[in-house]
Amino acid sequence: MDIDTAFDTPIGEVARAIRDARLSPVDLVGACLDRIATRDGTLQSFVHLAGDALDQAKAAERSVRDGRALGPLHGIPIAVKDNYLTADMPTTAGTDAEIAFPKEEGAAIARLGKAGAILIGKTRMHEFAWGMETPPTRNPHDERRVPGGSSGGSGAAVAAGFCLAATGSDTGGSIRIPASLCGTVGFKPTFGRIGRSGIVPHSWSLDHAGPLTRNVADAALLVDVMSGHDPHDAASANEPPTDLASLAAAPVARLRVGVCRNHFFEAVDSEVAASVEAVIERLAAAGTQIVEFEVPELAHGLGAIFAIELSSSTAYHLPHLASGDVDDYSEDVRLLVEMGRLVTGSDYLQAERYRRLLAGKFQTVFDRVDVVVGPTMPITAWEIGQREVVLGGRRESVLETSWRFTYPWNLLGLPAISLPCGDDSRGLPIGFQIAGAAFDEASVVRAAAAVEQSLGA
Amino acid sequence: MDIDTAFDTPIGEVARAIRDARLSPVDLVGACLDRIATRDGTLQSFVHLAGDALDQAKAAERSVRDGRALGPLHGIPIAVKDNYLTADMPTTAGTDAEIAFPKEEGAAIARLGKAGAILIGKTRMHEFAWGMETPPTRNPHDERRVPGGSSGGSGAAVAAGFCLAATGSDTGGSIRIPASLCGTVGFKPTFGRIGRSGIVPHSWSLDHAGPLTRNVADAALLVDVMSGHDPHDAASANEPPTDLASLAAAPVARLRVGVCRNHFFEAVDSEVAASVEAVIERLAAAGTQIVEFEVPELAHGLGAIFAIELSSSTAYHLPHLASGDVDDYSEDVRLLVEMGRLVTGSDYLQAERYRRLLAGKFQTVFDRVDVVVGPTMPITAWEIGQREVVLGGRRESVLETSWRFTYPWNLLGLPAISLPCGDDSRGLPIGFQIAGAAFDEASVVRAAAAVEQSLGA
Repeated sequence: MDIDTAFDTPIGEVARAIRDARLSPVDLVGACLDRIATRDGTLQSFVHLAGDALDQAKAAERSVRDGRALGPLHGIPIAVKDNYLTADMPTTAGTDAEIAFPKEEGAAIARLGKAGAILIGKTRMHEFAWGMETPPTRNPHDERRVPGGSSGGSGAAVAAGFCLAATGSDTGGSIRIPASLCGTVGFKPTFGRIGRSGIVPHSWSLDHAGPLTRNVADAALLVDVMSGHDPHDAASANEPPTDLASLAAAPVARLRVGVCRNHFFEAVDSEVAASVEAVIERLAAAGTQIVEFEVPELAHGLGAIFAIELSSSTAYHLPHLASGDVDDYSEDVRLLVEMGRLVTGSDYLQAERYRRLLAGKFQTVFDRVDVVVGPTMPITAWEIGQREVVLGGRRESVLETSWRFTYPWNLLGLPAISLPCGDDSRGLPIGFQIAGAAFDEASVVRAAAAVEQSLGA
Repeated sequence: MDIDTAFDTPIGEVARAIRDARLSPVDLVGACLDRIATRDGTLQSFVHLAGDALDQAKAAERSVRDGRALGPLHGIPIAVKDNYLTADMPTTAGTDAEIAFPKEEGAAIARLGKAGAILIGKTRMHEFAWGMETPPTRNPHDERRVPGGSSGGSGAAVAAGFCLAATGSDTGGSIRIPASLCGTVGFKPTFGRIGRSGIVPHSWSLDHAGPLTRNVADAALLVDVMSGHDPHDAASANEPPTDLASLAAAPVARLRVGVCRNHFFEAVDSEVAASVEAVIERLAAAGTQIVEFEVPELAHGLGAIFAIELSSSTAYHLPHLASGDVDDYSEDVRLLVEMGRLVTGSDYLQAERYRRLLAGKFQTVFDRVDVVVGPTMPITAWEIGQREVVLGGRRESVLETSWRFTYPWNLLGLPAISLPCGDDSRGLPIGFQIAGAAFDEASVVRAAAAVEQSLGA
């Protein structure tokens, strides 16, 4: 398999080519490093490159030669968001403050390593995962624009072909937002599905781990590798790893596809809306049953996720508030961490009560549908420095806009994927979001694969 | 069975006598009402008597005569704490504020009714379950002293023989404290074991329902009747009702009895300590294995339960804060509800994190022991108006003292019972507390029955 083909081929096939010695992992990793050297000076998606990436690749090649048992990601170069602690690379969680993060890997990194992945570097993130822009990283589709956040480095690196996949974390949309803006797939499985030991916490009850990839099959495969019970994450589900990779080709006809017409379709850019409606029409044509509904209670979600996210972020940062380390944070993040001290315990509990109420409503929804679909975001990538956007005649903060459709699935802890469904007239990618019932990643992957196939055809 | 005997006989036998027409429920309820009429003017344990109590008893008698299928509490007079909503009696939750509580019964009251209990009245409670004194109720053992709280009316009514049992609720000790001070049994099973629909909330994640009774067998029987899944309580465990009543006579020899020497034995009145140590010696003599240990982390529990209880109480009372109804609360409760607004969301989350840490420690403890025993409270009943107590040379608020040994089991959600283990030199009852692992009420009941038997012998 030649190198350029590898960058356009699902990981399963690339790994097979490596296993069969039809592709050298040294060549593959070398090509990644070349691409990074050429373009990452501009994009700035990496904060650290593994000094031993080529050595890892050579070791992987030796293992192939020696006929050893090889994992499903053997020799595959993967980038790691910089809030995943790593034993061989430093971690900063995106901050300039002098906080010493331990050099110990957690469950997800250990599983990637065991599967044979080559961790080629750490990707830039919005500081402490508290933002949607990831400065100074640039969007590969238009370098004057943001890649999104907080996993913006991962989104840019995957979109630019610097690696075959990357890890991300998602508290209110931080995997799906950069996926949407950079034109990659981003998958946040059910809360508790992927263990979060060794990932710097942002908000314990909202944080999810997951991959950013070039296609749906890769996202499924990465979740298969990363998932499973993690005894060191108190919120980890006691579930075996998923088995999703084979579902990317399963028939979709019998799926019941929910379309929540309020909230998820309000104040959307017209090109985004048109693209998403076209996909829904394709799904209907493919024989799925489209079920339209509304959940009016969604109107109150923003206050709830803010109360929870602010409280937990501030609880995590209490030692840094006490030590004065927050003074070295970026202004935006420092303000959020300090503002969190104003949320009361009763606010927090009201937010949790709302969350339970909303969960009950969606439990009923998922009795009637298998997935819920819509735009991942109301907009495409905005310009670096842009603060506002006008949608439906209303001027809105671009940050408020950015996570409007993603955060409900964090409050609910339900699996949600974003995949590209076309470009706007400026050539910027548009994201299509598919969510499912708790621990029903299978339906999400089936629907996503169907959308992907329909667009490819 | 004559009436005086009935008041000294376990409910199981009394119910059998009613079923066999050897005891008239009309006579039994009549005797309760006579006793109440004679003495409750002074004790003030009831806030409302069921106008139809005798009619209920007559109907119960007819059912016996007609040979109908009868529940395990058929014809048994039970008093109800005034935070359990009832369809036929008003509810005040102990407040003078004009708050209209619905006249709809929840799961526990429905189960008692289905079991045939005659609900003879509503017992006084510390306002909104936020206190340990229950004014103006008096302790039947010494009318100058408090009955404890917040289920003080239930403790006094059971101790005075106004009913055969009563319901209570326990957020930091509110069943076990009045049980300890009034010389009754009080049993708070595992969090989630008894459904709390229809019970006015105090603190969602700490509130437990349970009975106050004259003996251990009755406590077991009442939990059997009241427990089971409650679809209208979001925290209800998906467990069948317990089957504990038969365990009150089970052998105890193989039980491993834990004694946590820090926290639970610190700053205890010397007569209370002597009485409790004597019981532990009796348990050892009965062949149980005594395991001493310490859990230093207990030292930080008070701040945690306060943060959680204040936050959730204030969240519940937000509408009453907004409406001004709080102005009609007692000064002590109004202050707590208003103070709750000062707890931050990050304080709340730190408390929850501590709680999880402590739960982990006790999970390890319960790998090695079946029950953990000690005094229910450091002191016996204090005088009405008394604010402080001196223990171990330290002056302490009587309120802080009162729940020191009970609240850890609310933070942990573990089952805990209090039963009388003797009197101090003033004739005031001393309480012995036995806690168990989650959903292992069986070991708690077995140990409690053994203690009860050893004291009776």
